[in-house]
Amino acid sequence: MTDPELSDAVIELLRRPNPAVMATIGPDGGPVSVATWYLWDDGRILLSLDARRARLAHLRRDPRMSLTVLDGADWYGHVSVQGTVTLHDDPDLADIDRLSQHYRGRPYPDRTRPRVTAWLAIQRVHAWRR
Amino acid sequence: MTDPELSDAVIELLRRPNPAVMATIGPDGGPVSVATWYLWDDGRILLSLDARRARLAHLRRDPRMSLTVLDGADWYGHVSVQGTVTLHDDPDLADIDRLSQHYRGRPYPDRTRPRVTAWLAIQRVHAWRR
Repeated sequence: MTDPELSDAVIELLRRPNPAVMATIGPDGGPVSVATWYLWDDGRILLSLDARRARLAHLRRDPRMSLTVLDGADWYGHVSVQGTVTLHDDPDLADIDRLSQHYRGRPYPDRTRPRVTAWLAIQRVHAWRR
Repeated sequence: MTDPELSDAVIELLRRPNPAVMATIGPDGGPVSVATWYLWDDGRILLSLDARRARLAHLRRDPRMSLTVLDGADWYGHVSVQGTVTLHDDPDLADIDRLSQHYRGRPYPDRTRPRVTAWLAIQRVHAWRR
């Protein structure tokens, strides 16, 4: 089913540190997907990118993103959201630390590689449950 | 790391009925992602789409796909492949049955909704392991 509103069940799924995959548009206009951490923060979604990765250049060119989150315990439940990201440097690694705490319960171990924060503003939602 | 060759470890991961997300290009040129079943078949990847879904129309317009497969037991291992799909009707539901057997151990329960088979020919591979 498609639902433009985020139901309580969807928000509950998004709040947990679930497996997720982000899809962006590559330099040739084709889709590029990769597993990612994400964090629900009061209606927006926080992600963090390695500043040296090609996908950051993709997002600077085309900020559209689709994110699919799987229900960790039962991946036949899943939610996909589409929207546009805004990018910010993360010089203190505060945002990647938030994500690392959420998924691993500790700060992000790599303190040397620069990170860029992506905030995903949700425009469309597609939720599916078995 | 990026590796244009499929290592034995990657093939072993792809052989299992793991959680996966496919990304395609929507009508506005933006990314669309959704969880999916997939099946590794000797170098190609089998997927099945509901014939009435919008994403099938997307793929007829632009056959490029990116597929991210998560290691079921440890999703910090994951593989993303990019390529182009060819589409075929599945009138006997033989292909969706193969996928359903792989994931659930039984034929696909819905015998009425038409299905379309997508064969993904892999052009690029990106594998990551913690």
